[in-house]
Amino acid sequence: MSGNFKEQFGHDIELIDREIGAFTPNVEAPLFYDPIRYMLNLKGKRIRPLLVLLCAEACAGKKENALAAAAAVELLHNFTLVHDDIMDQDDFRRGQLTVHKKWDISTAILAGDGLMGLAFQKLLESPVGDRAVMTARMVQTMIIICEGQALDKSFENQKLVSVEQYMDMIARKTAVLLELSCELGGLAAETDDKTIENLKKFGYHLGLGFQIQDDLLDIIAAENNLGKKIGSDLKMHKQTLLTIRLREKLRQPDFYDKDLETFKKLLHDTGVQGEIETEYKSQFRLAFAALECLPVTSQRDRLYSLAKMIENRTWR
Amino acid sequence: MSGNFKEQFGHDIELIDREIGAFTPNVEAPLFYDPIRYMLNLKGKRIRPLLVLLCAEACAGKKENALAAAAAVELLHNFTLVHDDIMDQDDFRRGQLTVHKKWDISTAILAGDGLMGLAFQKLLESPVGDRAVMTARMVQTMIIICEGQALDKSFENQKLVSVEQYMDMIARKTAVLLELSCELGGLAAETDDKTIENLKKFGYHLGLGFQIQDDLLDIIAAENNLGKKIGSDLKMHKQTLLTIRLREKLRQPDFYDKDLETFKKLLHDTGVQGEIETEYKSQFRLAFAALECLPVTSQRDRLYSLAKMIENRTWR
Repeated sequence: MSGNFKEQFGHDIELIDREIGAFTPNVEAPLFYDPIRYMLNLKGKRIRPLLVLLCAEACAGKKENALAAAAAVELLHNFTLVHDDIMDQDDFRRGQLTVHKKWDISTAILAGDGLMGLAFQKLLESPVGDRAVMTARMVQTMIIICEGQALDKSFENQKLVSVEQYMDMIARKTAVLLELSCELGGLAAETDDKTIENLKKFGYHLGLGFQIQDDLLDIIAAENNLGKKIGSDLKMHKQTLLTIRLREKLRQPDFYDKDLETFKKLLHDTGVQGEIETEYKSQFRLAFAALECLPVTSQRDRLYSLAKMIENRTWR
Repeated sequence: MSGNFKEQFGHDIELIDREIGAFTPNVEAPLFYDPIRYMLNLKGKRIRPLLVLLCAEACAGKKENALAAAAAVELLHNFTLVHDDIMDQDDFRRGQLTVHKKWDISTAILAGDGLMGLAFQKLLESPVGDRAVMTARMVQTMIIICEGQALDKSFENQKLVSVEQYMDMIARKTAVLLELSCELGGLAAETDDKTIENLKKFGYHLGLGFQIQDDLLDIIAAENNLGKKIGSDLKMHKQTLLTIRLREKLRQPDFYDKDLETFKKLLHDTGVQGEIETEYKSQFRLAFAALECLPVTSQRDRLYSLAKMIENRTWR
């Protein structure tokens, strides 16, 4: 998929990267700005800012009017990554040392704080839309993401997490940011409320589908595709939809000690893998249905194409 | 001073505390909201939100129009405290365990993030003023505060910090938030640009004076006045105006191993203590001069009274 992805979205990603990097560091404070630059240079897939741009264009908005919001959601996403990596004690991200490993925890806390500040600063540079409304929506989303991360952490000490609890957690931790990305695209295009609702629905279900699929890929993705280690959730005893469904099936509270291959076979033989695939695909279907409500344009096709690439991905 | 302070500002502090606590926690995420409530219940002196209210009233603004901004600066201040306590490895604040000691580092990182989110959310509830402009100013200030904290941390590994570097650091770490508080008070009163400039100047110099005085009080304040341990800067080998001036005098690079009494005597005998007192008092004088530019009202007198209480304090 990588080649096709680059071909279709490479130009947009260049624009996004330029916008993200467009801040002036205080040269006296390299301990603050170096890790921020380092993190931004790890070059994520930029899915969220792409959603902002494509949603704006699908609503007949101008790309340049959505760039600030696009950069803002990516900066916000990077804030969550830096702080989450500390909490999850992850040593690597995209094959590179995480910020707290390359520097230290204090530096990483500050870098995360800074990325959050830069995110709001960037959003407030939006050339169109009600900046106070856009910022209020981003603040609200950011608080919900923190709630989601707190829930995820609390699950580590909770034996029996229900499917409902898990879905609520990933809705907060993942789906609301994709929802916000699509909404901000619509706001940057100054589109109508009805369309905004459909964009939000699209982003929200895309986010749920993405996360459920992500948990599955943690187990079944081919090794060495991207920086993330395979099986890391299992190793960290994370509760995911996989472990919850397996537990329901097997009435066996603990299988974290199993090796990856045994766990994979279990997933397959119990039919849990098939169930999970059905579940994330049904989320993608809901996302596509919301997309159908937008006017038929080549811009809508690009949005569809991006979502389809995500659904069919084999990488994490 | 405590009795007089309470008498004059107790009612305002009650209003501030009510406004700060007026958010609805997600009951499913106690790991996120409990430490936030805990931190806010430690009951700081609320100097910054008081400045917002008093500045608004000194510009003929209504107190109720400034309450959201007042709560916002206090929430922002508490965000910096929670994250700084992790970085400085402080175990106590106001005689109580710090958040990362009572819970853990992950919980404290999230609590700080949440306080920052709540600060922006609160500011965006302002009933008057251009909310986008107010938020932009708060974001800018928050980034500068992070730069200041990064500088402070980097000084720990720097043998020879200059007076200029130190003053730049405390301007960022402390003075800009008091400056912002006064500015937001003026904005909430929808006053003119000239007055806003004077309010900012007042807050900025008050902040510098406050911080230099604070460094001195770390050494010479009477024990057990408030939660903070006396001599903690010395123990942490912090570079302050005291150590910088002493080094200039004695051409001796290291006196951190001296005990508190010896250090106190050194400060006194070298005349450094007197110099520091002169320096912070001159900052307060600049603050009072800015205040003189405001119209003479009983509200201005209250602002003067608060600043005077700070200048004459013997507590940290």
